[in-house]
Amino acid sequence: MPKDSINSGISHTYAVVLAGGVGTRFWPISRELYPKQLLKIGGEVSLIQQSIVRIQSLIPADRISIVTNTRHYESIRQELGLLGASKSGFKEVHFVLEPEGKNTAPAIGLAALHLRRKDPKGVMVILTADHVIKEKEEFLKNIREAVEIAESGHLVTFGIVPTRPETGFGYIKISEQPSAKIKNGYRVEKFVEKPDLALAEEYLAKGGYYWNGGIFAWRADVILREIEAHLPDLYKHLLVIETALGTPEENEVIKSVYEQIEGISIDYGVLEKSKIGVMLPATMGWTDVGSWSALDEVLPKDKNKNIISGNVIDINSKNSIIYADKRLVATIGLEDMVVVDTPDATLVCHKRNAQDVKKIVDEIKKGKSEEHLVHTTVYRPWGSYTVLEKNERYKIKRLLINPGGKLSLQMHRHRTEHWVVVSGTAKVTCGEKVYEIHTNESTYIPMSTLHRLENPGKVPLQIIEVQNGEYLGEDDIVRIEDVYGRKNEP
Amino acid sequence: MPKDSINSGISHTYAVVLAGGVGTRFWPISRELYPKQLLKIGGEVSLIQQSIVRIQSLIPADRISIVTNTRHYESIRQELGLLGASKSGFKEVHFVLEPEGKNTAPAIGLAALHLRRKDPKGVMVILTADHVIKEKEEFLKNIREAVEIAESGHLVTFGIVPTRPETGFGYIKISEQPSAKIKNGYRVEKFVEKPDLALAEEYLAKGGYYWNGGIFAWRADVILREIEAHLPDLYKHLLVIETALGTPEENEVIKSVYEQIEGISIDYGVLEKSKIGVMLPATMGWTDVGSWSALDEVLPKDKNKNIISGNVIDINSKNSIIYADKRLVATIGLEDMVVVDTPDATLVCHKRNAQDVKKIVDEIKKGKSEEHLVHTTVYRPWGSYTVLEKNERYKIKRLLINPGGKLSLQMHRHRTEHWVVVSGTAKVTCGEKVYEIHTNESTYIPMSTLHRLENPGKVPLQIIEVQNGEYLGEDDIVRIEDVYGRKNEP
Repeated sequence: MPKDSINSGISHTYAVVLAGGVGTRFWPISRELYPKQLLKIGGEVSLIQQSIVRIQSLIPADRISIVTNTRHYESIRQELGLLGASKSGFKEVHFVLEPEGKNTAPAIGLAALHLRRKDPKGVMVILTADHVIKEKEEFLKNIREAVEIAESGHLVTFGIVPTRPETGFGYIKISEQPSAKIKNGYRVEKFVEKPDLALAEEYLAKGGYYWNGGIFAWRADVILREIEAHLPDLYKHLLVIETALGTPEENEVIKSVYEQIEGISIDYGVLEKSKIGVMLPATMGWTDVGSWSALDEVLPKDKNKNIISGNVIDINSKNSIIYADKRLVATIGLEDMVVVDTPDATLVCHKRNAQDVKKIVDEIKKGKSEEHLVHTTVYRPWGSYTVLEKNERYKIKRLLINPGGKLSLQMHRHRTEHWVVVSGTAKVTCGEKVYEIHTNESTYIPMSTLHRLENPGKVPLQIIEVQNGEYLGEDDIVRIEDVYGRKNEP
Repeated sequence: MPKDSINSGISHTYAVVLAGGVGTRFWPISRELYPKQLLKIGGEVSLIQQSIVRIQSLIPADRISIVTNTRHYESIRQELGLLGASKSGFKEVHFVLEPEGKNTAPAIGLAALHLRRKDPKGVMVILTADHVIKEKEEFLKNIREAVEIAESGHLVTFGIVPTRPETGFGYIKISEQPSAKIKNGYRVEKFVEKPDLALAEEYLAKGGYYWNGGIFAWRADVILREIEAHLPDLYKHLLVIETALGTPEENEVIKSVYEQIEGISIDYGVLEKSKIGVMLPATMGWTDVGSWSALDEVLPKDKNKNIISGNVIDINSKNSIIYADKRLVATIGLEDMVVVDTPDATLVCHKRNAQDVKKIVDEIKKGKSEEHLVHTTVYRPWGSYTVLEKNERYKIKRLLINPGGKLSLQMHRHRTEHWVVVSGTAKVTCGEKVYEIHTNESTYIPMSTLHRLENPGKVPLQIIEVQNGEYLGEDDIVRIEDVYGRKNEP
């Protein structure tokens, strides 16, 4: 359907994609620094890319914002092809950056501030980057209906018809008054927290209860008014931020305000208390992918009902999810199991324990290791690096520098670096000298020497870096100049 | 007990340790090139080292032989500390090398040939390198009794009192004639192949049936006479080898004879047919460790009956075996499972499927990958190398060169090599030049250039090698000179 055939209101419609997830439920694939929205689940591309592409049929890229925090910013831009010289269809997407995640109410409030300045009557469609939507045309139809109701000043939530007595979701009870019907929606009688099994069964039997799918539509001015009414502290903080928007102090103010903001969800903080909620039944084929076992609902299975991906040799397993990468995973006779292998960590559990993966992440956090935090591959504005091996005296990394990518001008006080080019051409600054080295050539960066690495070429540059030193932490870096505006964070 | 208090016959007693296992049942820890006898199961040291140390109380190292094949020779010497400048207690142990494994009859025949030349009345105690023996003093007492019976010209087999209707072992039926008793032993009535469950239960109920534990004692001349009688073809082949022993053609003759030899076990080829068999009941606490699930019988368990080792975070698993190395393995709520993680492969199965690990190895062999064959670490006479990463155009290795270790003088036609020293000092020959490089220094070996790497120092030398080239197979090597006598095998 061409854009101009859509009702006129859609030109005041904006999409806000919440992408601040912390990546615990899909560990070890997801990590704090590589969260679920970047995973390719139920499609060839990541969940966040699926979300954006889906809404783009209705709302052009320059009216789409991604709300995320600074820690995920590079990875998301990498995923959307926004780094280097590549041509991405997402160049015009906006980013709203939070210094840290404080749940959905502050994230939505911040996005609403931006929108109110731009288009005071603008409608925000709030999407998440971690659901699978099976029926795209129905989704677009649902969104158009929601926008219409939102324009009239309501807070619209999508309700999913329950198919099982699920205890992991919040529920919405709709009003049964005849006057409660607004277009295809219903006034909300109440939101209810995650129920126990008996209550969930009761809801399912009674009818009139829907799952809260976490997709919303409302006007920027309306949601801010409701935040003012129900979360007055948050609203005051948002006003402080508003005065700084567009000024040189913007980032600093947001950072200091966020330190004082209390984390709270929009559901708990506003929707449960609001009198202007409307629920629209969703027909979009919404599926939450909340844990490994939930993949059963979205991915195709083999004849033994297994979902198997990667370098796996399986003998006679049934109804299991086996996910490998390059390393070999061999499985025999598994039933209802989840096995997930990554370069630095492996998960093995029964499907019924898939929700407990968070506990593993908690256990890891208690220890000193970093497996909850990073993969061996870390994304940077110039490309990425992968740690191949480390011990106390040396560390070996593979660096991938995108065409045009440029590391900061920097030095290290405790380590030297040997660089061997294995593909592409590198421009190297080392002390006073600037020179190029090519595939199969190497160079050496002494300690405390200013240096910079760039990819001046048209193809990716790959370098094997061998660091030697008595201290090899990523924080041994003094940045003199950085085209990406970074200071001394690693 | 001091050696001289043992009966005089023990000075004519020799131990032969069979160590030619192919490493399928403990995949992925064991591999064809790193078999089970090298694993540390039920002790701080490997099974082969446990075997040798145990028998050394009775038989000195210079009367102990290890029969293995050329593929395992380096790994076993590495394991016994026989490489480099280290002081090993096993310096005097002999090796009998088979060019390839042909089951136990040829291996025992070859060892017997060597012994017959040295001490015609010598008694051979045949041990394996893959059992756990719990009662060392009983073991030594059992061996002394067996040697006494063997001296009188019998073929002695140890019988293990069955504790369950095991279908995985062969059984020995002893004669119940009063005249059948020879010291503490019994004449063998018959050997029986692995029974089905009903038959195994019958044996267990009837009594008089023992498991064949695979530990034997006999005179070299007696077993050769029995091989002549029951395996005349093998005997003829052994005679051809005998004429070459000690001559410059020895290795070549053994190699060509072995190509013609049919693989057969000593049990099936000789013991089942022999009339001079005697079985001695074993009181040594013999335990076969035939598969991952058998570890339950030999390793200590935690309060949930798990055997957990390495970098594991477990929540609520029971009765499971979880074996990790440096990578993190996270497990939740497993029951009766086996999880084994290695740098390049992971196994997950139920304990009841542990015997099917061989099928995984078969599957891998059908494909092109090498996971059945090698670990990422490969042992060489000069030390070892570990592949850290490879793709089509480059390969990264960490080389560990023992003090005094010296790689061959060699060249590669399709690759260059960058070497960065991360610890120790390297002596490098590159073309006409010979020079030393130290920690944090690097050098470059061009294509088709003769080169050699040595560790002239007193501490291990570690080098990161980055290979660049269009072909990176281990067989792109032209060896000009090698202190370990290797030619063009990688």
